[in-house]
Amino acid sequence: MTATDTPVSALQAPGPKGRIVLSIDAMGGDRGPATVVAGMARSARKNTDIEFILHGPRAELEKLVAKRRHLTDRVEIRDASDVVTMDDKPSQVVRHGKQTSMWSALDAVRAGDASVCVSCGNTGALMALSMMRLRKLPGVNRPAIAVLWPSRNPQGFNVMLDVGADIRADENDLLQYALMGSSYARNGLHLERPRVGLLNVGTEEHKGRSELKAAHELIQTASVAANFEFVGFVEGGDIPGNRCDVIVTDGFTGNVALKTGEGTASLIGDLLKEAFKFSPLSRIAALLALTSMRRLKKRIDPRRVNGGVFLGLNGPVVKSHGSADATGVSAAIKLAYQLALSGFQDKIAARVASAVSLAQDAAQRETGTE
Amino acid sequence: MTATDTPVSALQAPGPKGRIVLSIDAMGGDRGPATVVAGMARSARKNTDIEFILHGPRAELEKLVAKRRHLTDRVEIRDASDVVTMDDKPSQVVRHGKQTSMWSALDAVRAGDASVCVSCGNTGALMALSMMRLRKLPGVNRPAIAVLWPSRNPQGFNVMLDVGADIRADENDLLQYALMGSSYARNGLHLERPRVGLLNVGTEEHKGRSELKAAHELIQTASVAANFEFVGFVEGGDIPGNRCDVIVTDGFTGNVALKTGEGTASLIGDLLKEAFKFSPLSRIAALLALTSMRRLKKRIDPRRVNGGVFLGLNGPVVKSHGSADATGVSAAIKLAYQLALSGFQDKIAARVASAVSLAQDAAQRETGTE
Repeated sequence: MTATDTPVSALQAPGPKGRIVLSIDAMGGDRGPATVVAGMARSARKNTDIEFILHGPRAELEKLVAKRRHLTDRVEIRDASDVVTMDDKPSQVVRHGKQTSMWSALDAVRAGDASVCVSCGNTGALMALSMMRLRKLPGVNRPAIAVLWPSRNPQGFNVMLDVGADIRADENDLLQYALMGSSYARNGLHLERPRVGLLNVGTEEHKGRSELKAAHELIQTASVAANFEFVGFVEGGDIPGNRCDVIVTDGFTGNVALKTGEGTASLIGDLLKEAFKFSPLSRIAALLALTSMRRLKKRIDPRRVNGGVFLGLNGPVVKSHGSADATGVSAAIKLAYQLALSGFQDKIAARVASAVSLAQDAAQRETGTE
Repeated sequence: MTATDTPVSALQAPGPKGRIVLSIDAMGGDRGPATVVAGMARSARKNTDIEFILHGPRAELEKLVAKRRHLTDRVEIRDASDVVTMDDKPSQVVRHGKQTSMWSALDAVRAGDASVCVSCGNTGALMALSMMRLRKLPGVNRPAIAVLWPSRNPQGFNVMLDVGADIRADENDLLQYALMGSSYARNGLHLERPRVGLLNVGTEEHKGRSELKAAHELIQTASVAANFEFVGFVEGGDIPGNRCDVIVTDGFTGNVALKTGEGTASLIGDLLKEAFKFSPLSRIAALLALTSMRRLKKRIDPRRVNGGVFLGLNGPVVKSHGSADATGVSAAIKLAYQLALSGFQDKIAARVASAVSLAQDAAQRETGTE
């Protein structure tokens, strides 16, 4: 594939010779830049068309990259002396963060040098900086963070958004989330016609907050043109279920649900370990069950689905877990790679733009009939 | 213990000879009255001081009770011909439900004939009817549903409220939930000084919606007089954690979190079963692991903690899962029994009343200084 095969915007342009260029923030993760470079090395081995722009203190990064022979000619290092820490306040980073690796990583996407930005850093700061450096897509009021969630679906995952970009969302925001989430499911999970559900406390249409009732109508109307199936209201139990592929909710509820699900899974995992330590017989059982357990762990391993995606900006940003190890970083890079390869940014921009123009048409028609 | 040993209100009065009388709605559960009576029989065997008032179609119930010899002299049957189904709308039940077993069950508490009402029926209808027949406690604006949640706590459970009585809550409601929830933890989990957390999307004090910031201050102030420890904001991951014993949130968020947690646990359970069916070796492992698995299942078995409690009414109501089997019904009855035995209703009423008078005092002081 060459760059001329697909119509792509400047932001989406693959690098020279049809290569995909990703912008990687080396700093800010709990395990430091060595882990990030190790994750890059894994991804580079699997996908030979990836190139990286790596941001952080040059001397340190040069040493780390030099250790991986197959990386050296595929990484451009951009020097950034400062690091955004987990304790930094977003507002301060936006004001004084120009020298940080995070800022530099976003600016590479802004300049069109890379397609997608990946960072393990402070979520709040990354979102604030992303909004400032990449700007919101025309028609998007609140960007959202989307995650993949282990579920009973054939594809093994649901998309849920927003999980914490903002703490509130009105009916129009929820409509945008439905459009962006279904675009993501189409490009990230390869679902042609994703099923979209709106999170509520009951499935009856009369239930829930007023913005949810309004959003129900808006999303229903948009589903035909946007080519997704709207299944209506869904409940918390459907998040790991098989009723839909995309769960739409505000960032407060989504964040609580995400962390509740993670916490529950982690509690059960620990109780399982305890149960197997109980008696000599159960220890033997644990040994025999090891492969079964590994299979299960792999299925729901959060590292395999590592990466929240910031949607609604001029350029996608993949947020990896702060505690990600090399496997986790590699999973986040793989996700960024897939999004770049599918021309996701152009598709989502087109989808949001068409919804905006549809809404404008509708408004004009209403004015015309008055 | 005789009825004169403890100062109790008419609503709390144990029956003749210091017995605890519970009012049981026999109908409305998915498995019918036979399961309810089977649950009663279990509880009656374990606690010889329980008596029941059982509500439903007399002929059918008489037959079911007659089969259990040890129940016959401990059950009073009150005839009710109608049943509230899972599809009935709360508003209709409130208007036309006078002949239902649910109505009759609540009226036995209202009349002071029983201490606590237990029902497996339609949650929305039960809450609407409870508010109408039992009325709200003075000072309570929105009653709440509290559940016990498997957690890393020494006691094995956290209390969470509201999980769905209402879809919104302002700062004063959240304060009442903190007061009622800590009362419940004291009487239901035997914690002298429960730790209370307020659910939010971050633990920093400046984060979250405005009503949460206001509630943070109110709950902090109330914690001294109400003898609980306020740990501040907690996150979704703390619901199954060990940072607090009582999780305070609005009914929308609480309901989504509850169902997300249940759904996640159920997904993991099914994946675990699948993992063990994978190969002959893993099947053998599964056999050996059977007791370990049973131990784990018992620890997080939702039937063991069956029963949401309606708080903030003139009389506690225990809502059992609609799909509860005899074990589940018996667990709900046990919970009702413990609440009755501890004089919970008087304590919670006193707690709420003292908070109301404190707030009035504060308001008067403010007026005085103007």
